[in-house]
Amino acid sequence: MASTDKPAVVSESAPKSEAGPPEAEAVAAPTKFAFNYSLVDVALRILLFAAALSSVVVMVTSKQTEVVPVPGLPGVMLPFQAKFNHSPALIYFVAALSVTGLYSIITTLASLSVVLKPVYSKAFLLAFAFLDVVFVGIVASATGAAGGVAYIGLKGNSHVRWNKICNVYDKFCRYNASSIALALFAAVLLVLLSMMSTFTLYKKIRD
Amino acid sequence: MASTDKPAVVSESAPKSEAGPPEAEAVAAPTKFAFNYSLVDVALRILLFAAALSSVVVMVTSKQTEVVPVPGLPGVMLPFQAKFNHSPALIYFVAALSVTGLYSIITTLASLSVVLKPVYSKAFLLAFAFLDVVFVGIVASATGAAGGVAYIGLKGNSHVRWNKICNVYDKFCRYNASSIALALFAAVLLVLLSMMSTFTLYKKIRD
Repeated sequence: MASTDKPAVVSESAPKSEAGPPEAEAVAAPTKFAFNYSLVDVALRILLFAAALSSVVVMVTSKQTEVVPVPGLPGVMLPFQAKFNHSPALIYFVAALSVTGLYSIITTLASLSVVLKPVYSKAFLLAFAFLDVVFVGIVASATGAAGGVAYIGLKGNSHVRWNKICNVYDKFCRYNASSIALALFAAVLLVLLSMMSTFTLYKKIRD
Repeated sequence: MASTDKPAVVSESAPKSEAGPPEAEAVAAPTKFAFNYSLVDVALRILLFAAALSSVVVMVTSKQTEVVPVPGLPGVMLPFQAKFNHSPALIYFVAALSVTGLYSIITTLASLSVVLKPVYSKAFLLAFAFLDVVFVGIVASATGAAGGVAYIGLKGNSHVRWNKICNVYDKFCRYNASSIALALFAAVLLVLLSMMSTFTLYKKIRD
């Protein structure tokens, strides 16, 4: 039934294009096969969720126990653990990235609903552009805070006699660095998502 | 002259509203006396410049010299200086806020040009929305990095034996805290500016 219907549709549209203005056809054609921003939006948000989740998991699993000399007692060695929750900056980092992961789940579902039913797409785009900017701020500040503290751990600071710890807690530092790199990637993704929402709004004005 | 002109305008508009459809008048009236987003944009960008500049000035002038005991030599006291450029995080903070100050000057001029000649306003709004998001990321990460390091200076970290320094360098810490608060204000301003650019684009679709 479907195969017999198709030629009828083609023959119906053929006289229409002859009758109608050819400019209207030329304009309608590229919008039909246009780049689908909503699908890219969904894909980027899933990637954002993956980045935020793996960043949190790597940071939380970074704990390492090493036998180190006890200060004040020469010759005495005891095991000490390095954990992310020993530093307020890293706790903030985990909290911020967890919230971003939750946000990415909610907005992925919202973005999927736009793909399936593009009625409220403008209102959704505006909401995405607003919220994404707020989350750019949250993720960037968390990355900055964790990066600043981790850099002291890596290099130390001789001026205030903060000794480096990455020569002892090597695994802890490697995990932290990977986690911060993933958070930086998440921040870049959020910037791109916010730009794309704004650009799609801009395109809707010009069309 | 102005007082005699006013009643004439009122009497002129009175017959117009009787002749024209009342719905069209009601729609046209709010757009005529609408909230001028371009002027608010200029004002917020000037405020952003003030915040960024004062943040950099306060951070750079935060140096303090105190006589402290020399480690390893008991009884010996020497003057030591605390300066922002002893910490890589604070150097990044000053660089990021300086760039933001420069950016705010350029965009204030661009925004003023939109107020005076609103021909390219949509392209400018798109450019502002794009760049503001990038600067939200830059300022937020700088605030996070400086805040994370300053918090260690304030409270120390007993787990890795990083001693606090704010009990000695009190002025340095007060200046740092003020500078970070100003940078946080600048980040919030940038979020608002980005949201306003996007919202103005959204309004232009609906009009």
